[in-house]
Amino acid sequence: MATLSASKALTLAAPLSLDSGQVLEDVQIAYETYGELAADKSNAILVTHALTGDQYLASKHPITGKPGWWERRVGSGKPIDTSRYFVICANVIGSCLGSTGPASIAPDGQPYAMRFPVITIRDMVRGLVGLLDGMGIERLHAIVGGSMGGMQALSLAANWPERAERVLVIASTSRHSAQNIAFHELGRQAIMADPNWQDGDYYASGASPDAGLAVARMAAHITYLSEDGLTDKFGRNLQDRDTKSFGFDADFQVESYLRYQGSGFTRRFDANSYLYITRAMDYFDLAEEHGGRLANAFAGSQARFCLVSFDSDWLYPTAESRHVVHALNAAGAAVSFVELSAPYGHDSFLLDVPALDRVVKGFLE
Amino acid sequence: MATLSASKALTLAAPLSLDSGQVLEDVQIAYETYGELAADKSNAILVTHALTGDQYLASKHPITGKPGWWERRVGSGKPIDTSRYFVICANVIGSCLGSTGPASIAPDGQPYAMRFPVITIRDMVRGLVGLLDGMGIERLHAIVGGSMGGMQALSLAANWPERAERVLVIASTSRHSAQNIAFHELGRQAIMADPNWQDGDYYASGASPDAGLAVARMAAHITYLSEDGLTDKFGRNLQDRDTKSFGFDADFQVESYLRYQGSGFTRRFDANSYLYITRAMDYFDLAEEHGGRLANAFAGSQARFCLVSFDSDWLYPTAESRHVVHALNAAGAAVSFVELSAPYGHDSFLLDVPALDRVVKGFLE
Repeated sequence: MATLSASKALTLAAPLSLDSGQVLEDVQIAYETYGELAADKSNAILVTHALTGDQYLASKHPITGKPGWWERRVGSGKPIDTSRYFVICANVIGSCLGSTGPASIAPDGQPYAMRFPVITIRDMVRGLVGLLDGMGIERLHAIVGGSMGGMQALSLAANWPERAERVLVIASTSRHSAQNIAFHELGRQAIMADPNWQDGDYYASGASPDAGLAVARMAAHITYLSEDGLTDKFGRNLQDRDTKSFGFDADFQVESYLRYQGSGFTRRFDANSYLYITRAMDYFDLAEEHGGRLANAFAGSQARFCLVSFDSDWLYPTAESRHVVHALNAAGAAVSFVELSAPYGHDSFLLDVPALDRVVKGFLE
Repeated sequence: MATLSASKALTLAAPLSLDSGQVLEDVQIAYETYGELAADKSNAILVTHALTGDQYLASKHPITGKPGWWERRVGSGKPIDTSRYFVICANVIGSCLGSTGPASIAPDGQPYAMRFPVITIRDMVRGLVGLLDGMGIERLHAIVGGSMGGMQALSLAANWPERAERVLVIASTSRHSAQNIAFHELGRQAIMADPNWQDGDYYASGASPDAGLAVARMAAHITYLSEDGLTDKFGRNLQDRDTKSFGFDADFQVESYLRYQGSGFTRRFDANSYLYITRAMDYFDLAEEHGGRLANAFAGSQARFCLVSFDSDWLYPTAESRHVVHALNAAGAAVSFVELSAPYGHDSFLLDVPALDRVVKGFLE
């Protein structure tokens, strides 16, 4: 993976004290912004990204050259309207697109690699709050996030309740289930089984654990799609052939697609970052952080919440969103909740779902 | 994986002509039997095994030392009553417990490895029919199989309809879905990414692709369990510790369990066999073999069928069994169908589900 300078970056004024008890010094947060910040700084929306997401929310990705991951929803006249709002998207710590992570250079001049501290979702949000502090933004118009981005939105709402007026959580959860952890552990084991991983010290070796990372990505990718979606998209269709090869090439389109997803991913993502971020997600349990009762996390919150789930999402199914909604109700918070029908599984939050556009636009008004 | 001599083995009288067009010579089928064959040979039941199963149906596994995989259902007085029936269970070709597979020695004196022909479910059944021929058993009282075993039962019923009076298909499917293929492809890629795989030529190297095979097994294992089952069994419980380690050890019980499942599996299974058998399953599409219409597969069948699914099985969900039942109805076959409630996901067919015991026993009467 290429090293990359983000177009904008801020070094946090203070060291980050992490949930592990460790302290991270000289933390850099790479970010992108869209639209103009109002003079009273009242129109900022922070969009938080998913596991393998990044700050290139509505602008071209510097490695892949692809459009921003939410360009369909962020821009002038779009559901998150950059002619009205100042939209910020920052790479989380632990990642690899310019924010401090395992590939960053430690104070001793060598990459952190596995010396990087294990971080939590709350630690990621600490970094984002540091960025907002640096930008002088005391209160967000909204925080908006899907998947792991939703975890960050919930964590901000729970731990820095004064920092956001609106909290929009899409296709997310307040805790990782055993099955969620299992899929992540599978991915981590695939990476660690790759001899190029070398206990994480591969940055100077000229070879990175791409094979293991590709397998991890393939596993995760299956969980992002619905069974019906896979069947509709690929079924048992063959790839570039009329009959089975009776060999081990990618006979089926779905095989070819997965291989492409796996190998393409290694160009833009660092394997150690994948380890750290999946670990943070697995550790996420917002109730546990708040005395074992999720409603406690939101006690006294003045924010308005909106939870969105998708009926075909089996990674973070609707029941997980409903669980959060019940806790918000118990805490007396203002919350709306909708389960949208979309065929794409967990990935629906990234894809063309007009009903989601309407929910996002409406909630931000 | 240790090389192993099965307690009983039969070399097929004729070469096997495979679906690929290739011919396999000197095919050995390793098998176990339980109970006594009646003088008129009318009481034989063939139990077909799943992907990583074997012939040790109701007797100790020679490598693991564990009880047979269906001992709870096969034995004197049990649902498959060995005091009444002569029960046969054979290792499928392509596997590694004594039947001819990629680890077997080819005519040139070297292991087949990836020179072994790609086989299909129907090819596996060809091997089993050859075994029955060798034993002089023209007509089975029943064929019984779960998961891939059910595919073999369906294939026998479709292609050798005169060979079984009763066909019991548990937690199975008539075709692999895109999602099924995706999970298998993930496993194959994990094996092939392991440098010890060496394009399959690892038998003489002293090192086998255990790391890749363990990852493949972990991926498959997740699909065998239900989300609720995982949550009930493990939840977010920590393993041998009171607090998170903030490291990459197996903090959670589910991680420890998966690692154990993965590493234990490599002791008893050959990675190339895993490639070949998953490929056979992915190729399985019984309708495609019969002009694109599943009912054609069962036209004129005189057998009685019973299909069983489990409500928590998301690998081969109830809809797949129902699909087969509809085809059997369209073909005018005698069929009963039941969806059983059990919390264990796909693995329910192997576990303590008393309702399944009753269905098996009743159907065999």
